[in-house]
Amino acid sequence: MNFASDNAGPMHPRVLDAIIAANSGYEMPYGNDTIMPRVRDMIRATFEAPQAAVYLVATGTAANALALSTYTNSWDTIFAHRVSHVEEDECGAPNFYSNGAKLTLVDGIGAKMDPDALRRAIATTGQKDVHSAQPGPVTITQATEVGTLYSLGEIAQITAIAKDHGLKTHLDGARFANACAALGCSASDMTWKAGIDMVSFGGTKNGCAGVEAVIFFDPEKAWEFELRRKRGAHLFSKHRFLSAQMEGYLSGDLWLELGAQANANCARLVKGLETIAGAEIPDTPQANMVFANLPRAAHRRAMGAGAQYYLFPSDASLDGPDDELIRARFVCDWSKPTSEIDQLITLLRG
Amino acid sequence: MNFASDNAGPMHPRVLDAIIAANSGYEMPYGNDTIMPRVRDMIRATFEAPQAAVYLVATGTAANALALSTYTNSWDTIFAHRVSHVEEDECGAPNFYSNGAKLTLVDGIGAKMDPDALRRAIATTGQKDVHSAQPGPVTITQATEVGTLYSLGEIAQITAIAKDHGLKTHLDGARFANACAALGCSASDMTWKAGIDMVSFGGTKNGCAGVEAVIFFDPEKAWEFELRRKRGAHLFSKHRFLSAQMEGYLSGDLWLELGAQANANCARLVKGLETIAGAEIPDTPQANMVFANLPRAAHRRAMGAGAQYYLFPSDASLDGPDDELIRARFVCDWSKPTSEIDQLITLLRG
Amino acid sequence: MNFASDNAGPMHPRVLDAIIAANSGYEMPYGNDTIMPRVRDMIRATFEAPQAAVYLVATGTAANALALSTYTNSWDTIFAHRVSHVEEDECGAPNFYSNGAKLTLVDGIGAKMDPDALRRAIATTGQKDVHSAQPGPVTITQATEVGTLYSLGEIAQITAIAKDHGLKTHLDGARFANACAALGCSASDMTWKAGIDMVSFGGTKNGCAGVEAVIFFDPEKAWEFELRRKRGAHLFSKHRFLSAQMEGYLSGDLWLELGAQANANCARLVKGLETIAGAEIPDTPQANMVFANLPRAAHRRAMGAGAQYYLFPSDASLDGPDDELIRARFVCDWSKPTSEIDQLITLLRG
Amino acid sequence: MNFASDNAGPMHPRVLDAIIAANSGYEMPYGNDTIMPRVRDMIRATFEAPQAAVYLVATGTAANALALSTYTNSWDTIFAHRVSHVEEDECGAPNFYSNGAKLTLVDGIGAKMDPDALRRAIATTGQKDVHSAQPGPVTITQATEVGTLYSLGEIAQITAIAKDHGLKTHLDGARFANACAALGCSASDMTWKAGIDMVSFGGTKNGCAGVEAVIFFDPEKAWEFELRRKRGAHLFSKHRFLSAQMEGYLSGDLWLELGAQANANCARLVKGLETIAGAEIPDTPQANMVFANLPRAAHRRAMGAGAQYYLFPSDASLDGPDDELIRARFVCDWSKPTSEIDQLITLLRG
Repeated sequence: MNFASDNAGPMHPRVLDAIIAANSGYEMPYGNDTIMPRVRDMIRATFEAPQAAVYLVATGTAANALALSTYTNSWDTIFAHRVSHVEEDECGAPNFYSNGAKLTLVDGIGAKMDPDALRRAIATTGQKDVHSAQPGPVTITQATEVGTLYSLGEIAQITAIAKDHGLKTHLDGARFANACAALGCSASDMTWKAGIDMVSFGGTKNGCAGVEAVIFFDPEKAWEFELRRKRGAHLFSKHRFLSAQMEGYLSGDLWLELGAQANANCARLVKGLETIAGAEIPDTPQANMVFANLPRAAHRRAMGAGAQYYLFPSDASLDGPDDELIRARFVCDWSKPTSEIDQLITLLRG
Repeated sequence: MNFASDNAGPMHPRVLDAIIAANSGYEMPYGNDTIMPRVRDMIRATFEAPQAAVYLVATGTAANALALSTYTNSWDTIFAHRVSHVEEDECGAPNFYSNGAKLTLVDGIGAKMDPDALRRAIATTGQKDVHSAQPGPVTITQATEVGTLYSLGEIAQITAIAKDHGLKTHLDGARFANACAALGCSASDMTWKAGIDMVSFGGTKNGCAGVEAVIFFDPEKAWEFELRRKRGAHLFSKHRFLSAQMEGYLSGDLWLELGAQANANCARLVKGLETIAGAEIPDTPQANMVFANLPRAAHRRAMGAGAQYYLFPSDASLDGPDDELIRARFVCDWSKPTSEIDQLITLLRG
Repeated sequence: MNFASDNAGPMHPRVLDAIIAANSGYEMPYGNDTIMPRVRDMIRATFEAPQAAVYLVATGTAANALALSTYTNSWDTIFAHRVSHVEEDECGAPNFYSNGAKLTLVDGIGAKMDPDALRRAIATTGQKDVHSAQPGPVTITQATEVGTLYSLGEIAQITAIAKDHGLKTHLDGARFANACAALGCSASDMTWKAGIDMVSFGGTKNGCAGVEAVIFFDPEKAWEFELRRKRGAHLFSKHRFLSAQMEGYLSGDLWLELGAQANANCARLVKGLETIAGAEIPDTPQANMVFANLPRAAHRRAMGAGAQYYLFPSDASLDGPDDELIRARFVCDWSKPTSEIDQLITLLRG
Repeated sequence: MNFASDNAGPMHPRVLDAIIAANSGYEMPYGNDTIMPRVRDMIRATFEAPQAAVYLVATGTAANALALSTYTNSWDTIFAHRVSHVEEDECGAPNFYSNGAKLTLVDGIGAKMDPDALRRAIATTGQKDVHSAQPGPVTITQATEVGTLYSLGEIAQITAIAKDHGLKTHLDGARFANACAALGCSASDMTWKAGIDMVSFGGTKNGCAGVEAVIFFDPEKAWEFELRRKRGAHLFSKHRFLSAQMEGYLSGDLWLELGAQANANCARLVKGLETIAGAEIPDTPQANMVFANLPRAAHRRAMGAGAQYYLFPSDASLDGPDDELIRARFVCDWSKPTSEIDQLITLLRG
């Protein structure tokens, strides 16, 4: 009963099979394997972007930091939501890879940038001429860190503001598939058609072992990215094993199927949570993650039986009044068996 | 017939099996998987270093750059051989991870640091007080980039010079297993017993998909290393797949067996090369790599039949006089079938 | 009638005289001039800190960025007020010199850190273990960027919070003299006796041409600072001219006298501003700077007659209704003639 | 009798007078003073470069590091002579300002780059594709660190090689005036007419207190340079005092007059040194610096009488055989009285 994160789950069998298949014989290293051209073509087809530059790395943080750094001067500031992976969970990787750029934190409910807040933040950046950090790219997360979604219109609104100021836009898609499945839109709808310039397209949380694609719809800085990737030590010698994962993930739109499955698992979980006496679910979950305030006694039962998930604050105690609500985060990946979800609910309900 | 590099080969079946086994069920992310404690214990046992701090990353460049940066101030210079991976093949990753430290290039035949050259290089560094870069760590490569080996005494000589000046020592062991097998020594003999402070212990080139261990015999900077790894985007969420590879690689001393096998393959190849009319083999190959000057006609036959390996210079032409010698590099990994080696020799011999 | 900034004014004659005196004959370069030992002693005496490490640089940004970087790891975040020079006016110099550290912005009225806000900011930093930026030093500005002052008790409160968490504290004293004069305290009262670890002691804005002292009360990192200063290109070859300025500035407590004079000039200005119909002065000015909301017609008269000062927003137009209030900043240095202050008031009053 | 360095001497009276004159009244800060436009025009006229971007900083290291960084990617390597200020005397400032670029050391006699060595160095850089550091700018020093000069033809040869490979060229002109005076050429002859793209034009060593101009003949990156200067903390608030120095230095071609005077002083010194029994002068001095091997007894006499200059090695002892030769460096600036030069020779001669 592990609901701690979607990075706690296994590879999907088809991704594993792709690795096994890729393991026969010899392949030239460093991205020159015979699988990568197929991956490139599949991603270009998936995103309807025949010119896109496509690269693979192994971690989401690498994808974000390398992509952003390609369009960030060291004296720039990146616009990101206060509750975003680049700000909260990467130990300053974007600052490191951009050689010391800053992050300007933009607010907005549900971990989504408020367009007015973004507009104000950009407008007040660089006002002091050479004394100020200068406006750099805008990055949004889809699905967000709290499981909410930007609508296509909301993405377009954010990117329009960026473009008004000549700024590039990045989409952190560690949970791209969940978002795409939930919105029922195409990969292109959610990206370049909505004004996004570059994407971190996540595989790791959704059935892969460790692979993320970085996609630039305009390939002008492709060579620079390759240098940055190598310099950052993120170019794999046995690159075929990244390529293979991504091929397995894209084939037959497995990525989308798994994203939808994770969402469905979460919806089942939410439905169950709603039946628990006293439970509160502040934001409406839209993808594969739910935050819920539940009575301490419920947590005591579930965790006592071995359920794994995070409480907030992280040092919240299970000792105390039964009815006091403690916030918890539950994340589902594609692999979660229905029986485990139901068992968790049963335990929580008591 | 791929003799281009030991990173062109596949995973060993036992490493792949370990990945498959690790794919069942849930594991906590970011190094908190249940496999990693076993890996840590195995490495400590293998190196007879019960206090060592042990971490996994996916690329050799990451292992080198992160390890070195932990003991390099930005105003330091790292002492490395002119022909070393950190200087020639990492696009400045050590400079990047150390926030702009320099490399001082030390000469010596066979890609091995000459002790006197090292002593002079250190002695003339930092002489100008605050105006000079300051002496940083010393890094050596074992086996070297040209397939030679430092004897245990030679390693001890290098590290003694470093210690005389209060400097830390690093061993780039991308081909650690080949060296250890060739010298017939233990992992501890080749490292801390010879004065080495930190090691990049390679798995990727020797039967893994992408895993390297960073080992600090003194764990004082363990926490700093963890921060650096995360900030560099090299901490895997599904870390279990790094752990699994390393466990498979260490179990039953597979690493050493594969290193010995690669060396044996290379010895067979060398023996064959020596039978080719006009062939010259400048350095005596000691591990799994051989440089040979061979007649152009030999290359024409072999490459024409599909053999893959590197020529020097890289743009050397196969058109020209038959007898002119062109330098080539051949690398064997554990997986090379005897038949392929013999076939290559047959082709080269004509 | 230049009230734009205290960096628009001239050197005090005694500072200039010190430069002239220093220009005879030869002096060893790079801080080895014969004046610097006297400067070191005078600063140690002024601050009652006989062990302090003392260095000179030419700009306030250099003083701040170099001092902070000496105690900031690249993965740290520096706690600074949202309205501070390090955040708003240094184009990311602290991020650059710390190799990519972040700034955590702390709020508080009058550009002064609210202690509770600081405590919360520290408490919520680094909570996510290796995934988070780690807590770095706390920096405060005295006098602040809006001309207010921390009381000695308020400084002690801030530093106590920092020390509770093991963090170092820095005081940006670009207007140290104004603050010290206004509080009527000693240099030591306002710094180490109140828990401050390092100080940027400003000369430039208060009668010098370009000199700031960096003072570490604990000299443990003195050598590291010297390397950082050189590497940052801030070590002067003809250092005697920095030393001379600082000697002239410290002799006979000129620094304090000039700070008091600038404050008195500002007080006279404030008194005059209060007589202007419709004028609002939101924060009580405590040093040498005042923000005032004044009718547009007043600005039109003053600026039309050549008065120089900044309006907010910077693109505020002088065309428009006469009575509409426009915010202005006026800064006095020691050199401002009484007649000019009175003339400005006369113009503004109409 | 200070012959240690040309940075040990005073300001020329006309430079000091310019500072004094600039000290009256108010001037807008940060380069917006009323003197700077005149300086810009004078430099453009001096260099016959009406479009040039011109900036002032206070140290030679800042000029070099900031200029180079403007045309150096972090993954590049800068081509510099092994005996150059950027390599030997700046504590890694070029590496710091370029966010971790490397330096490739090029050899050549007399501290002058050998064109063939440069061509080879460039040709062998970046050969390994993304794995290699990439070729960055070429920087030469004129006059060199050992007092020799590139002829105009030699400069043109170096820059032609750079341009063949699409690389920018920088001239470290800390002793620009000495070189120009010695060659009897114009500032434009020695720079853009010979293919130089950017110049550090030194004032500090030649009669100023601390000012260097950075000149870009193509202003395309002017704004970027301004941001880099501010971020590096090298933008002076009381910039007028940099402007004033440079104005005094340029007026009536004082810079050239002082350079010629320093050269003449050195020539007188060299003539005297040649009369010393046993003296050897390895390189023919061409500007204001001479290296000479002199008998220990000569040094003992001169230094015993208070003469200041550097010995090589720096820890050479005055105790030992009288006749043994010890290398010394003597540097003359414009201010050296003839009597002191003669007195030094008398002492050395015994």
